[in-house]
Amino acid sequence: MNTKKLVGENAVDYISDGMIVGLGTGSTAYWMVVKLGELVKKGLDIKGVATSKSTETLAHELDIPLVNLSTIEKIDVTIDGADEVNPELQLIKGGGGALLREKMVASISDRLIIVVDESKYVSNLGHFPLPVEVVPFGWELTRKQIEKLGCIANLRIVDQDSFITDNGNYILDCYFEAIHNTTDLHMQLNKIIGVVENGLFVNMANTVLIGLNDGRVKTLTKESTSTT
Amino acid sequence: MNTKKLVGENAVDYISDGMIVGLGTGSTAYWMVVKLGELVKKGLDIKGVATSKSTETLAHELDIPLVNLSTIEKIDVTIDGADEVNPELQLIKGGGGALLREKMVASISDRLIIVVDESKYVSNLGHFPLPVEVVPFGWELTRKQIEKLGCIANLRIVDQDSFITDNGNYILDCYFEAIHNTTDLHMQLNKIIGVVENGLFVNMANTVLIGLNDGRVKTLTKESTSTT
Repeated sequence: MNTKKLVGENAVDYISDGMIVGLGTGSTAYWMVVKLGELVKKGLDIKGVATSKSTETLAHELDIPLVNLSTIEKIDVTIDGADEVNPELQLIKGGGGALLREKMVASISDRLIIVVDESKYVSNLGHFPLPVEVVPFGWELTRKQIEKLGCIANLRIVDQDSFITDNGNYILDCYFEAIHNTTDLHMQLNKIIGVVENGLFVNMANTVLIGLNDGRVKTLTKESTSTT
Repeated sequence: MNTKKLVGENAVDYISDGMIVGLGTGSTAYWMVVKLGELVKKGLDIKGVATSKSTETLAHELDIPLVNLSTIEKIDVTIDGADEVNPELQLIKGGGGALLREKMVASISDRLIIVVDESKYVSNLGHFPLPVEVVPFGWELTRKQIEKLGCIANLRIVDQDSFITDNGNYILDCYFEAIHNTTDLHMQLNKIIGVVENGLFVNMANTVLIGLNDGRVKTLTKESTSTT
């Protein structure tokens, strides 16, 4: 049972003709984009906004028409993955390093739908290290300030070199173990000089679709929970 | 009467043997650095931390020993200029485009001393456009969010091209006319996705030295005002 495929494909039910759709990134959102490509081939009339270069490439291959973020006022619905989701629909995102772009797309979306498999659904955020994007200049100082908030912050290394985001910045992966006040932490992090953005998505997701191992999909919304 | 030279040279009185000194940038701080170079030649034993590449070059020419920001825990005193100062010692900085680096240096300084000529001293901040450093990706969206706070935000252009900061970002020069709640505006700006830092320095300066046209220097501190 591929739960990522299951829940990713399920999410396209939220998309209809005429919409501008934010296209997420990652192994679950991938299946949503592939399914959307099939529907576009059959005549579905939508325009996509890609949250990463890889999704942009995938959309091109599938002939999904794209619009540039700078030319639009708002997005109708964005479907994206997450690294962790809690029962309050708060998220950690940015494991892939594209948190700023993903957050920007989410911020102008009328509706943000998150697709995950059940391993990502947790009672407390923070077991997954929180990605924080920081300016390279003085990053050691920035790290010290971040660690004062109660974590160990490791510079992300890929292929023995500092990982560089699309914006030319570093990522610090911050091990908090458990985050109890996400709203407060989000604010504290963004106040630190040198922090560009952090991977906490607070009060942004409207709906979370969780692919369960038994083949069902659990739907969380701000108001209710259902499993079908 | 060169009031910039007057007040810049005056500021070195705050520096003594053994200190780590943050070296500011701009036409007033320039005179402080030059004077400091003379004192170092005469035996003053300090180490400098440069707030910009141009100050770094100047310090090298003057044989002022420099230390790297990443290797130190704190700075004893930083002396820097400002684009505007109000009676509450709040500042607008970043006209030169180095606001992030200047703010980072200021943030770890035990004491921040600001040197300006009297044209920079205003009752209300905001006549000088507030520089805001933003990530190039999606900057038009970021601008829209910033303008909702009540300003016109112009992309800084130099030589017919977008100005790029040392960190690879853009600067939006934001025309507020008058800023009434600096603390609140500072927080609102840093909450916007895509904003890296802004030029408001709130509760950072301890002392402001103002070079007056009549040749005197006015000293503002958090507690008192004096003119000598």
